[in-house]
Amino acid sequence: MSSEPAPLLALDLTGTFAFGLNGALTAVRAARLDVVGVVVLGMITALGGGVIRDVLIDSLPPATLVDWRFYTLAAAGGLIAFALSKHLRRIGTAITVLDALGLSAFAVIGASKALQSGLGVAPAVLLGVITAVGGGTIRDTLVGQVPSVLRSGLYAIPALVGASVTVATIEWGVYGLPAALGAALTCFLIRMIGIRFSLNAPEPPETRERKADT
Amino acid sequence: MSSEPAPLLALDLTGTFAFGLNGALTAVRAARLDVVGVVVLGMITALGGGVIRDVLIDSLPPATLVDWRFYTLAAAGGLIAFALSKHLRRIGTAITVLDALGLSAFAVIGASKALQSGLGVAPAVLLGVITAVGGGTIRDTLVGQVPSVLRSGLYAIPALVGASVTVATIEWGVYGLPAALGAALTCFLIRMIGIRFSLNAPEPPETRERKADT
Amino acid sequence: MSSEPAPLLALDLTGTFAFGLNGALTAVRAARLDVVGVVVLGMITALGGGVIRDVLIDSLPPATLVDWRFYTLAAAGGLIAFALSKHLRRIGTAITVLDALGLSAFAVIGASKALQSGLGVAPAVLLGVITAVGGGTIRDTLVGQVPSVLRSGLYAIPALVGASVTVATIEWGVYGLPAALGAALTCFLIRMIGIRFSLNAPEPPETRERKADT
Repeated sequence: MSSEPAPLLALDLTGTFAFGLNGALTAVRAARLDVVGVVVLGMITALGGGVIRDVLIDSLPPATLVDWRFYTLAAAGGLIAFALSKHLRRIGTAITVLDALGLSAFAVIGASKALQSGLGVAPAVLLGVITAVGGGTIRDTLVGQVPSVLRSGLYAIPALVGASVTVATIEWGVYGLPAALGAALTCFLIRMIGIRFSLNAPEPPETRERKADT
Repeated sequence: MSSEPAPLLALDLTGTFAFGLNGALTAVRAARLDVVGVVVLGMITALGGGVIRDVLIDSLPPATLVDWRFYTLAAAGGLIAFALSKHLRRIGTAITVLDALGLSAFAVIGASKALQSGLGVAPAVLLGVITAVGGGTIRDTLVGQVPSVLRSGLYAIPALVGASVTVATIEWGVYGLPAALGAALTCFLIRMIGIRFSLNAPEPPETRERKADT
Repeated sequence: MSSEPAPLLALDLTGTFAFGLNGALTAVRAARLDVVGVVVLGMITALGGGVIRDVLIDSLPPATLVDWRFYTLAAAGGLIAFALSKHLRRIGTAITVLDALGLSAFAVIGASKALQSGLGVAPAVLLGVITAVGGGTIRDTLVGQVPSVLRSGLYAIPALVGASVTVATIEWGVYGLPAALGAALTCFLIRMIGIRFSLNAPEPPETRERKADT
């Protein structure tokens, strides 16, 4: 069972369900899948990032496979997406907000677990980002798409900021529930602003020139 | 070396060879590859699922990289597929039957190893399925195809049933060679019935409606 | 920190930077990516093979995430490729040579670490090859291409030879800096000859016949 404080745990579980739901919905749209494919891709989206983190910090078996609440919520999200994908489109905004909450929780918890396992500051931030975006990256690759996190939108960058704030507050000795929630809120707000104003991370100069030519 | 009883070990080795052969044949058909690609994809198909399982239950180095019989049989399957791919098409049915034997052995052995490592019932079943289908999933992704296990046919579902029967008999204290062979046989028969009658797992309601419209 | 002798360590660090640079350049060409995508794919190319090796031999957290020089050089390579991709094309030959040095260093160091971890001769050679080509394979898969190492060119084969020479000299008790550099040089020369004369590993007989028909 997880030893996180209740508010963080609630965020973590909410995020797991949201990632399962949203991950499965994205998969339904991207490729023709059967029930196995939809549920598996929802579960991979929700659990994949944390599993990669736990493998790399040698905390095995992975926490999300030990605590039944995580894999059950991930599977529930996938099954609901399978049954109701058409209707869930209408509440797309609500799902996006839940997904951003998950991104924030995963970045903060991932970075703090990595730092506690003895990794340095920079690798801990990196593992926070991997926890947050790793599952979606595997899902996109499995359905034959270049992962959206590598292409456009602000998705990895809010996770990077949230993980950095987490690691900084731990290093300064001021980490605790308020700092964790502050780091998560920072990530959440950047993600929301990115969606609202359709912000993108910069592209290589070469790509920009190619676009200017056409 | 493996400590499985002889009949299970024989199934496991047969399955490893069949997965190496069939995995490499599938890869030759899907993409233009050289000898390195064909043999590597055969080996990944045969060994990949067990390697993922062993990483997740922290049983490292992976059993199939320690016991020479597994990696040798996997490589032999890949090399034979490389040399004889055209002729092997004619015995496609025999290879499909061998592949179903492998699926069954991998699901049963994978679930039982995962449960013995201390995982709960549901994660152990999940790892049984991953052991059985993980290698083929990596192969399909590497040659740029959406893994067939996510799309159509009954492939994950027989593995799920076989792994569930295994875990149930262990929990009830009646596991042993007869139970293991029974679980494998259940998986094998469902797989064979699925092939014979071209059964598929259900698709999302949305996909079915889209098809009905056209 | 790494305990390799200075010349090998220098090769290892050079290779990490070259893989980060070359991996990111390849990614820019293959898919439209933002700065996150370019840097991440550079880092994955440079660090991915070593991470897979360390996961499989249970040497965690992975060496390249513990020693700051590795992840910093990998990220620097990715960032330089992001900023200067157009100009770097002009020094393509220099980058290819650096990349071949990296391939050689990774194959030798990977095989020797795997053998020291207690693996047998054949799996140790395999892990040497995985260390050398694993990162590029993940990168190609993420940008939606069949990994070039599976398709054409001599890339895995020089790594296989370099790893085999390494393992042979360790088994014969004559391993040391001269043997390691000799193994790396062998790999490097085969790779360079392969590039110079556009050599390819053989394709399956079936593929050759199909080509002859057209």
